[in-house]
Amino acid sequence: MDFFSKIKFNEHGLVPVIAQDFETNEVLMMAWANLEALENTIKTNKATYFSRSRQKLWCKGEESGNYQEIKEIRTDCDMDTVLYMVEQKGNKAACHTGHRSCFYRSLIDNDWKENSTPLMFDPKQIYQNK
Amino acid sequence: MDFFSKIKFNEHGLVPVIAQDFETNEVLMMAWANLEALENTIKTNKATYFSRSRQKLWCKGEESGNYQEIKEIRTDCDMDTVLYMVEQKGNKAACHTGHRSCFYRSLIDNDWKENSTPLMFDPKQIYQNK
Repeated sequence: MDFFSKIKFNEHGLVPVIAQDFETNEVLMMAWANLEALENTIKTNKATYFSRSRQKLWCKGEESGNYQEIKEIRTDCDMDTVLYMVEQKGNKAACHTGHRSCFYRSLIDNDWKENSTPLMFDPKQIYQNK
Repeated sequence: MDFFSKIKFNEHGLVPVIAQDFETNEVLMMAWANLEALENTIKTNKATYFSRSRQKLWCKGEESGNYQEIKEIRTDCDMDTVLYMVEQKGNKAACHTGHRSCFYRSLIDNDWKENSTPLMFDPKQIYQNK
């Protein structure tokens, strides 16, 4: 996978990754990937990231089934950001809060308030036994 | 602007910012902002970033006129990423290469090739006297 040698990783060996819905163009989330995560994304056709908090590879949906099927992979002019065009599978929510997108808060009347991003599941029900 | 105190900046005092077209949802670019850049964005209603290469505030379009009018500002569940919903003004290109979006390359047949992102201007003509 020589093409990944052109990607500019930061001082921690990571590159920011934006996940976008391939049909609606909604931005679903922003996370990080190292080289191994990008390679795993190609191998499995499922969006893979590197979890900075857990310091390990994170194939999104590996436990929940809410994985992201890769439709296209883009990079920007500087080749220091990657964009996954995906189909969000499972309950169609990219966010652990149950929202379709992690960007469910907007600046409204001088505060961060919920915008119209739909809630796809109730996290209390999903995570209650975990 | 107390609401920005909730944003989690990284060890360099920066937060990643995604700029997205408010109508088509196209991701136009990814850059960085410090607190001053976010505050300037609110004050001027024009997308402002922090240029890491030049180490200074960067009000996009201040020279070219290709500024980004702010329609909405979002943040994600962790509040460590910001999303500007914008109207790209001027020649409608967010990228210095003349492309509508900086994400004009996709992984196609094992290499990074130009995708269908339109070219809005010829950078050779625009920058020839600079």
